[in-house]
Parts: sequence; structure tokens; C-alpha cells
Amino acid sequence: MALGAMQDWSMRISHVIDHAAREAPHREIVTRWADGGETRTDWAGIHRDAKKMSQALLALGLEKGDKVASLAMNHSRHLVSWFGVAGMGGVLHTCNPRLFDEQLEYIVGHAEDKVMLYDAAFQPIVDRMRDKWLTVEHYICFDSGEHSQSFEDWIGAQDGEFDWVTGDERDPCMICYTSGTTGNPKGVQYEHRSTLLHAVSGLQPSTFNFSASSVMLPVVPMFHAASWGLPYAGAMAGIKFVFSAVNDPAVLDELMKREGVTDSAGVPTVWLAHFQYCDANGLELPKLRAATIGGSAAPRFMIERLMKNGTRVQHAWGMTETSPIGTVGGPTADWDQLTFEQKVEKTMKQGRPIFGVELRTVDLDDPTKVLPRDGEASGALHSRGPWVLKRYFKAEEDALTADGWFDTGDVATIHPDGTMQITDRTKDVIKSGGEWISSVELENAAVGHPAVAEAACIGMFHPKWDERPVLFVVKKEGADCTAEDVVEFLSDKVAKWWLPDAVEFVDDIPHTATGKISKKDLRDRFADYQLA
Amino acid sequence: MALGAMQDWSMRISHVIDHAAREAPHREIVTRWADGGETRTDWAGIHRDAKKMSQALLALGLEKGDKVASLAMNHSRHLVSWFGVAGMGGVLHTCNPRLFDEQLEYIVGHAEDKVMLYDAAFQPIVDRMRDKWLTVEHYICFDSGEHSQSFEDWIGAQDGEFDWVTGDERDPCMICYTSGTTGNPKGVQYEHRSTLLHAVSGLQPSTFNFSASSVMLPVVPMFHAASWGLPYAGAMAGIKFVFSAVNDPAVLDELMKREGVTDSAGVPTVWLAHFQYCDANGLELPKLRAATIGGSAAPRFMIERLMKNGTRVQHAWGMTETSPIGTVGGPTADWDQLTFEQKVEKTMKQGRPIFGVELRTVDLDDPTKVLPRDGEASGALHSRGPWVLKRYFKAEEDALTADGWFDTGDVATIHPDGTMQITDRTKDVIKSGGEWISSVELENAAVGHPAVAEAACIGMFHPKWDERPVLFVVKKEGADCTAEDVVEFLSDKVAKWWLPDAVEFVDDIPHTATGKISKKDLRDRFADYQLA
Repeated sequence: MALGAMQDWSMRISHVIDHAAREAPHREIVTRWADGGETRTDWAGIHRDAKKMSQALLALGLEKGDKVASLAMNHSRHLVSWFGVAGMGGVLHTCNPRLFDEQLEYIVGHAEDKVMLYDAAFQPIVDRMRDKWLTVEHYICFDSGEHSQSFEDWIGAQDGEFDWVTGDERDPCMICYTSGTTGNPKGVQYEHRSTLLHAVSGLQPSTFNFSASSVMLPVVPMFHAASWGLPYAGAMAGIKFVFSAVNDPAVLDELMKREGVTDSAGVPTVWLAHFQYCDANGLELPKLRAATIGGSAAPRFMIERLMKNGTRVQHAWGMTETSPIGTVGGPTADWDQLTFEQKVEKTMKQGRPIFGVELRTVDLDDPTKVLPRDGEASGALHSRGPWVLKRYFKAEEDALTADGWFDTGDVATIHPDGTMQITDRTKDVIKSGGEWISSVELENAAVGHPAVAEAACIGMFHPKWDERPVLFVVKKEGADCTAEDVVEFLSDKVAKWWLPDAVEFVDDIPHTATGKISKKDLRDRFADYQLA
Repeated sequence: MALGAMQDWSMRISHVIDHAAREAPHREIVTRWADGGETRTDWAGIHRDAKKMSQALLALGLEKGDKVASLAMNHSRHLVSWFGVAGMGGVLHTCNPRLFDEQLEYIVGHAEDKVMLYDAAFQPIVDRMRDKWLTVEHYICFDSGEHSQSFEDWIGAQDGEFDWVTGDERDPCMICYTSGTTGNPKGVQYEHRSTLLHAVSGLQPSTFNFSASSVMLPVVPMFHAASWGLPYAGAMAGIKFVFSAVNDPAVLDELMKREGVTDSAGVPTVWLAHFQYCDANGLELPKLRAATIGGSAAPRFMIERLMKNGTRVQHAWGMTETSPIGTVGGPTADWDQLTFEQKVEKTMKQGRPIFGVELRTVDLDDPTKVLPRDGEASGALHSRGPWVLKRYFKAEEDALTADGWFDTGDVATIHPDGTMQITDRTKDVIKSGGEWISSVELENAAVGHPAVAEAACIGMFHPKWDERPVLFVVKKEGADCTAEDVVEFLSDKVAKWWLPDAVEFVDDIPHTATGKISKKDLRDRFADYQLA
């Protein structure tokens, strides 16, 4: 130790919930449950229940490092388990209930989960999987005692008189699995330290802008990439949370308006449904301060409509491997001088890295060549920082480049002002005659055609150019167009040599468990496709 | 290591300046120098110069852990040295030029400073002290080459091609000495880790609310308690800084208006001078977003006037030993529902602890008794957290209570909503008949009298009550009042048994080097005083 020092303070999650209970004990946590019921608790209540839960886990015989699975939507008891599991030194494994059965079997077995906490709504999954989840010794139902012990009864047997289990700040506190478009899902272990650093960075105005007056309704599920760290950041600032276990726009709209919600976070489709609901019912959109949008890019009309409603819109980019926040599209230094149109243009992109995250792009053909931040060069996006993955759970080696960067699998351009713009996924980008074509840009342009409902572009083998783009299109109901119409429509939107060699109309496009277009399945379906 | 991990990332200050230079390279750093000149650089420039400075220090033969002193006001070259010294593994010792000579001799010798960086304005101090600063081997002048090598020439000899020196995140990067009202000043070593955690917490809306659009003019000197961490937090958010090496209100007013300053931070007297300047010249106050006020409490009229001008006012409480941010008076959850009067009342207090800081009060007579957070009980204020002192530099033992808390020396009340209110200093509080009287509350009440310019209250020996309060008063020029007038004025403002046993009129009240009332000197001056 140096000849004088600051205090020793291990970055443990228990500090987060202790702070919330001490400084914002009566700030509310509202839950709208799947059965339509509503409950209200507060940070003091979450803290008390988390302590009881830690005791209850120890009473089951669990030990430090053991894993506890959840299969649940957003609600206060799920929130309790974020702190209750970490508080006894355990690791919470938030399972995505939308995964396919074989994936759910794999991840629970791979993580060696000992307890399964689940929503009654997922009882069918539990019934199906029970015989396959060989490591699970205890089932606890969050909201019913019908088929398993109920969560409230289970923790109700404890008195809450408990000192948090201490340990190293680099101990894991949570594990999330990637959705895995190829191969088995991979586990990412978040550590107490990485989680705490990520969360405190989440408070800043350029991220979630959390203060005592914030009221957040997170639509992003708690099983998805640590819910962007919102539960931890929210506790640090003592915000009010409004949770809904169902994502029905009527419910969300009513909650946002009644509970004074100031902020939301979720994928763009949530807002699409919200627009449709309000329009169909002649309702105004809720007046949020900010809507953080991630998962995929929000379309221009969505950004414009929210901005015109007085809501700051910002993309957040990241992935399970990055905890997940990498970049956020908060206002730039020159924001007040921009026109509305310029603000929309900036907002369309993915934003800038927050302190702690470092990004670079490298040449797709020669990954040792770092590309300039010129807004032109497009390459594989690499990331590094304290909350970026080093090694997947149980992997034999680190998942980093030789010089220590994590390859995100995204293809991106970095602009001179630091703004990052995703242009594709590495495995989807199309190589034609030695040059790269962005499948995503072609798709985004194609869905602007009034008759196109959805579009997916993949590269097909070509004897001369190696690959050429083929666009698969689902038409809107009742609308019609020809392949020539679509190509004509694209001709002033992308470079001429990017224009697809063929446009194929299909009835549907395959999706992954998390709702993204599955190009792997599309490629499998058209494995025998030949360019004319 | 666990079976899977996040990346290793040492919390070093070099990350902070690297981030600023990468993500906000062209965001300006403006300096108004003591000679009236003005220069503009940016984060890329600060980064480049900090690298050159690290090289220049190594070229002088300095090694990791060596201390570099500064005796300087706020300007871009001082900012460079914050990152340049830390970048070569050194420790920056920011000396307060207002200290008395014997204190300056003591702290430079105690810290074993090897280099002295100073402003030309402080050449007289250097000339006086040179023979007494036995450890200092090199003198560099920030803004002139007349008597020593100039800073620009010195770093100009380097090329900036340099990899930051790495090390443990708990290595020290800065040392500040307390002003020391009793005994020798004591050194507080800030570590890379504590500094980084403190700074990232400083970004949040409830602290400095820093984002890309922020423009901060810090009036708090860079030699005072790490300038509240502003240089680090500002770099993390890539804000624009406007520095002034002189605190003339005409200069500050002009800079604030011309440079689009959004935020300032400083002691209340700065605003007092600013009000007087604007009033005397028929000018409007600058329209700041927020004014953070620390050092001592802002009077009500100052808070009201700034708030009416659209500026958010917040007290920040802390001390050298707490890095310094402990509490900040940001808006509470119910802020929008409060009347103006209620907002002013809340703003008068010291605010709430930010995440990381924990506070408690203990009984002044029995420090093992923790007091309730009821807004009534007043006791010794204890603090703990990652940026709170454990041990003073070169001290033989930790400066903590047996159960690990730092006794701040303040007397405070904690309100049920977590708001902390300073009521006195432990050593100034007056014990009368077994009960405690706040000297500060008596002083604050007394200065409300129209004829009172300044007031200081100390406890004097009393045969029956142990101590009784005596109020020393400096009258305003041309105003008059009697001791009876003052007691009468106080009679409806404090409890009857608090009323001073005597009011003594004096020509002046002694002050410390940092401008606070020196009760130690007042007690010395009236050592023979006897209550009638």
C-alpha cells in the first residue's frame, strides 16, 4: 500500500441496493402483472425482500458461485432476484423464454442452474423442460403457488436479518447467453465490478440521464442483456420503476400516462405498436422525456414522430458481450445549432461511445489494418473496455484479437465526430468483385417501397463476382409490385453496382427467437438457389 | 479467475484523457490568462501536451511515484499537468498559493516535491521560498520564461510519441493538503481508482450533469480539493472548459456570456462579487443552467436570485478528505410539485449523498450511538466510500473510527429524505449544561441583522454551564447597533437558552488562508476573556 490511501471498497452489487434503500427508501416500484393485477413496493421493500431471498437461497443449500435461473418478464419480484442472488454470492441466469426448447435445455445445463424462478405464464415451458433440466433442484413460481412453491411464501419464511455475502469484485453476479444464430448459445458472465462500472456510467445525461425525478418503464426485458443495466442504474439514482409483465400497447400507454413515466427503453417494434394503438384509438402519445431505442435501428418516421412529440430519441448500441451499452446517441455539442432535419440524421445513427468503451473498425479483408474515422471507411467493429467480454463462460480461450479487442461481429463506419454507424453484420455483408456491399442498407432502402412489408438480402454465389446480392421480399397485404419496380426504386438510393441481381418474392422471412431476421435460416432455405 | 470473464481494465487516469482526445478532440479549452491574453486549445491539444509533459518529466530523471508541485491558478497548462504528471506515474501536488509561508514550506518538504510548476504571478512566493524548498530540483514557469524555464519551451522539446506509464489502479495520482486550522496541514493522496470512480459519478444529472453540450467555467481553483474532480469529469464527457486565471467578476461575466458558459462551480463569495458587478454596471446576470456552490453555505438571497434567473442552484458538500464530493443538492423526486419557497428551503441544505458515499451521524458525547435520520438529531458526521480517506500521507495509522468511518469534523442533521444539513464544526459547537449549541446557526442568524457585517460565535468557559456562547460582531460601515439590539434580533430565531451571554463588537475577525473564519485564532485572541 502507498504511504496514505483512500478507503478499501469492493465494487459489489450489494452497495447498489443498500444505497437505494438508504437514500430513496420510499421511491415506488410499480408492477402490472400478467393477470392484470397491480402491486406497488419501493426500494426499501426490494432491499428487504432481496435479503430474505439471499437467506432463502442459502437455506436451500446453495453456495457462493451457484447459479439461479429466471424465466420471467419484468416485475418487482424479478428485480428482487437481481439483488437477492448477487447478495448471497450467487449468479443470476436470466433465461430468454422465447428461445427454442433445445436452446433452453442447453443453456440451463451448461450454466448448471440449481434453482429455476419462473412466471406462471411460462408453466408450459417448465412442464415441457423439467425432465431435461437435470441440474435444477428447485422450482419457485414468481406469481402463483399452484404448481411450485410461490416466491412470496418461499422468501416469507425468512426474517431478512442478513449480512450480504462478501467477495472479490471480479466474482460473477449474472450470466446471459447470446441468442446464438450459429452454433450453441454462448454464456457471458457479468462481474460485480463490470456491472457496477457499467451502471454508474449509465446515469450520465448522455446515457439514461437518471436522477431522483426519473420514472422509467423499461420495455426491454429483464432477460435481455441485463436489461441494459437499467435495474442497477435505476437503484443508484433511486428512480421510480414502472414494470409491466405484458407488452400490450394499451397497458403500456395507460401506465405511462397514469404513473408519470419520463423514460422508456426498448426495441423499435414496441413504439410501432404504440403508434398504431394510439392512432386507432384517437389518443395522444405519452409525453416522455426520452426514449432509448436499441436492438435494431429505429426507422426515420418513428424518430421524427417521437421528436415532434417532445421526446428525445436516442439509439443505444451494444450486445450481450458488451454488458451491453457501447454507444448512445445523446445530443452532440452542436445540438442546439442543428435543424430538425439534421437532428433526425444524427439520431438515425448509433451514437458515440460512453467513457469506458473504446471502438475501432478494421479492414474486413485485413484485420490488422485499422480504418480511419472518416465517416466513409466501413469495417469490422471492435470494442474494448471494463464491461466488454474477455472470455465466454467455460471457453478454453479468450474471445479477443491478438491485440486485445473484442470483435463485435458488426460492420460499421465511424464518423469524424465519433458517431458510430452500423452498416451490417460481418457474416451478412456481401463480397462482390473484391468490394463489400451492405445487406442492411439494401434492406433498409427496400422497405421504403410502399408495397414492401419486409426485405432480407443475402449474397449468392456468382462465378465472376464471387457473390452478388439477392433481395427476398414479403409484399404488404393487398399491395403489388414487380422485381423491376423494386430495383428501379433502389436505383437512386444505393450505388449502381450494389443493385441486387434478383428480387424474389416470398410469403415469409424466417426469424430468430429474439425476432431478428435469420439469414442463416434464409440461406438454408435457399441453399440450392442459383443466379440466372 | 472465474470460468469466463470481462476484460481486464485498470482504472488509470490515462483512460480519461485518451477518451477525451478520441471522442471530443476539437471541443475547446479556453483560457483567459493573468496578463489579459487569451488562448484556445482543445482536448486533442491537452492530450498531446500531456504526453510531451510526461516525457519531459522522465527526461528530468523523475520516476514513478515522484511528486510534482503546482502553484497555479486555473488554466489550460495547469490542466495539462493533471494528465501529464499522472501519465508518467507521478503524483501532482496542487499547492494553495494562499497558504502562509510556513505552511508552504511544510507541505512541499513533507510531500518531497521534486519539481515546482508555477504561475509568473507567484514568482514572489517562489523567490521567498526557494531556499526553504530543499527537495525541489526544478522550477518551471507556466506563463513566462523570465526567471525559470517556460512550460511551453520545456514540453516543446518533446515529440509526444509516448505510451503512458502503466501501474496499479490504487497508485496515487494527486496529493492535496488540508488547510489545517490546527497543527500541520495533512496530505490526502488521491488514487487513480478513487479519482476515476469519483469523476464518473460526477457526470450524473444529480452532480455536474455533464454531457457534450456542457460549457463549464470552474471558479473553484485547481489547487483546491482537486477542483472538485471537474477536470476529470469534464474530460470524460468531452465538455468545453473556460478557465480564468483571475477571478475578477468583470472578466468572469464577459467570459460566461461570450463563451456560452452553461455551468459554474465555486464558493458563494464569487457570486456575491458577480451580483455587485452586474448591479453596478446595469448588466443582467449570465444565464447559466446550473451553479454548484460549495466551500460554505450560500445565503438565501443568493439562491433566490440565481433561481429566479433560471439557474439551478445546488450546494455540494465535501472536503479534501472526501475527494471531495459527498453530497449534492440536485432536484428531489418531488421537485416539480414544490413551491418556489419550498425549493429554496431544500436548496439551502447540503443535498444528498451520491452513489458511493455513505453518511451517518453519531452522538457528540457517545460516538458509538448512531443517530436517527429524523431531521432533528444533530451529531458528528461520518462518511465512508471508495473516494473517502483511509490514511493521511505518511501517517502511522488509519484516520478511521474502529468500525471504519471517517469523522468529517462536521456536525450535521440528516433528514428523512436523506438530505444532509451541516449545523457546525465539531470543534466549534458549544456545550452548555450538557446540551449542544450550534455556533454556525447563531452566526447565520446574526448576519441577518442589518447592521452586522460579519459574526463569529465561540464558547467561553462558564462555571455553571461549562460553556456559554459569546458572539463577536463586526459592524457594517456606517451602521450602528447595541449588544441588546443583536440579542433582541436573535430572540425569535433561536431557542432562548441559545442566546449569547455576551455580544462583543470587534474591528475584524481573523480568517484562515482559504478565507474561512478562524475560530482558533479568535480563541487565541480572547484567551483571557471572562464572562461577566
